[in-house]
Amino acid sequence: MKTLMILGIDIGGTGVKFGLVSPQGDITEHKKLDTRVMVKEGFAESLAKTIKEYLTAHPDIKGVGIGFPGLLSVDRKKVIFLPNIPEVKDMPVVNILKEKFPDLTIKIENDAKCATMGEYYFGDNKGTDNFMLVALGTGVGSGAIINQQLFLGARGNGMEIGHMLGRDGKTLEQHIGLASIIAYAKEILKDAKDTKLDKDNLGMHALCDAAAKGDIYAKKVFTYVGTHLGEHMVSVIRVLDLDNILIGGGISAAFDYILPAMESVILKNLPPYYTNALKIKKAWLSNDAGLLGAAGLIMHEHRVFADTI
Amino acid sequence: MKTLMILGIDIGGTGVKFGLVSPQGDITEHKKLDTRVMVKEGFAESLAKTIKEYLTAHPDIKGVGIGFPGLLSVDRKKVIFLPNIPEVKDMPVVNILKEKFPDLTIKIENDAKCATMGEYYFGDNKGTDNFMLVALGTGVGSGAIINQQLFLGARGNGMEIGHMLGRDGKTLEQHIGLASIIAYAKEILKDAKDTKLDKDNLGMHALCDAAAKGDIYAKKVFTYVGTHLGEHMVSVIRVLDLDNILIGGGISAAFDYILPAMESVILKNLPPYYTNALKIKKAWLSNDAGLLGAAGLIMHEHRVFADTI
Repeated sequence: MKTLMILGIDIGGTGVKFGLVSPQGDITEHKKLDTRVMVKEGFAESLAKTIKEYLTAHPDIKGVGIGFPGLLSVDRKKVIFLPNIPEVKDMPVVNILKEKFPDLTIKIENDAKCATMGEYYFGDNKGTDNFMLVALGTGVGSGAIINQQLFLGARGNGMEIGHMLGRDGKTLEQHIGLASIIAYAKEILKDAKDTKLDKDNLGMHALCDAAAKGDIYAKKVFTYVGTHLGEHMVSVIRVLDLDNILIGGGISAAFDYILPAMESVILKNLPPYYTNALKIKKAWLSNDAGLLGAAGLIMHEHRVFADTI
Repeated sequence: MKTLMILGIDIGGTGVKFGLVSPQGDITEHKKLDTRVMVKEGFAESLAKTIKEYLTAHPDIKGVGIGFPGLLSVDRKKVIFLPNIPEVKDMPVVNILKEKFPDLTIKIENDAKCATMGEYYFGDNKGTDNFMLVALGTGVGSGAIINQQLFLGARGNGMEIGHMLGRDGKTLEQHIGLASIIAYAKEILKDAKDTKLDKDNLGMHALCDAAAKGDIYAKKVFTYVGTHLGEHMVSVIRVLDLDNILIGGGISAAFDYILPAMESVILKNLPPYYTNALKIKKAWLSNDAGLLGAAGLIMHEHRVFADTI
């Protein structure tokens, strides 16, 4: 099993990443294609062509794991709909690839669930029974491992926690998606004094820097993020009874500033049964999480961990 | 299997119901004990004594299913905590009973999940792959069947949707528990004219009657209920991706008046992937749902349906 070689593919709205992944999480032979070009060439054909190239160079590839940014069929054979690649719709991608590569294990998964798989196979939470990943970026993605399995929900597309409704009937994403955070920051900076933040030139980096230096406005922004995130975590925990939360994505750079408000809201709204056991950590996630997680799908199929081979 | 005879037990804060249940859902030999008296006698001993009486009279009893109003261990062996019977805490009830009755199948479950099991084995949703039950009463109870199994969440006590947070950081129960509904009705009736509702003597029955006769205040109350319920259903659906909702409990008498606002909120907040498949129905639930559902635990163990034996 030491030679289990996997091709991971991470499909995004602008680019599609390919890479050979070892069970230890080493990525080699990295490659990136333009999503729009692939769509123009015929998405499935273009995908198959690149897989074929990898197979020719590396005949020892045992499986291909692919992450898609959208809805999949519950049996994980078909792409239903990808908001940012609407051309790829109702596509029986697994059957198409299985026909061309009958000896390969081929697995597909939603991209946020792939990232969760990445944490499960390569991150700090390796092999943990239960946890939830919350990826805070432009939007809010999420996935959960329950009893050592990806939790899909009844029809295959659960864990869309960014679209749960909270205060004012708004979704979590409407509250703390990147654009909303920046809009909130601009609002409170309108008449601000005693700050070096420039309200016309705001980003996560500037906000994190300012918070580290004790800027009260930056801190207020992350208190806002933590409060909304905390309230939604209360709701998710009430439904899934999970006690292990990983915060990932670009905005998690501000983890230390988000955590206090988040914890305070959770402690206020959940009884000790939940809070005594609760662990909230920064995710291990990197830019390659999607690719690694896609490879994790194949490891999951074989129940292989890096330290068991 | 035609003779599969089950003892169902439904434990409540004030009374404990016992009954022999057939796989067809007939209940005989009904009996009710006072919870406080049982606690005084020693709860487990009292429970065992009554089970023994049933077994002596009916040696063909194959299993005992018990519903508890509170938190259970994930392996369904132990009661962790019952808010209304705090004396019954950390009790290894299954082992205690197994020791006394080694030949019996003994199963325990949370009461709202029992009611869900009741719907699954005896209601309109018999054998349905996936559905969620929302029981609207004094509080808001809930359970879900996912892939023909009770969904427990990671640690065994998920589906507490009554405690999810929504508008104003309030829980669903704080919005539409019975007391909150009555408080809302009183509020809007303060300066009301053109209504026969008596704000000092309000109940579900009076509100339903009034709504049936077109009373605008009664209708407004149920629009309020449907709106909050709808928003929380959006959140649950986003997490669990279920497409089948049953509304039960005393307040479901007003189902027809609650549904329009509920549907409207759901349609506004969920894309067609969810709403195209969504079915919302009144639950079949009766007062005996808990008892039947407890018996359903034993049927589930044997995978027996009324029409398969």
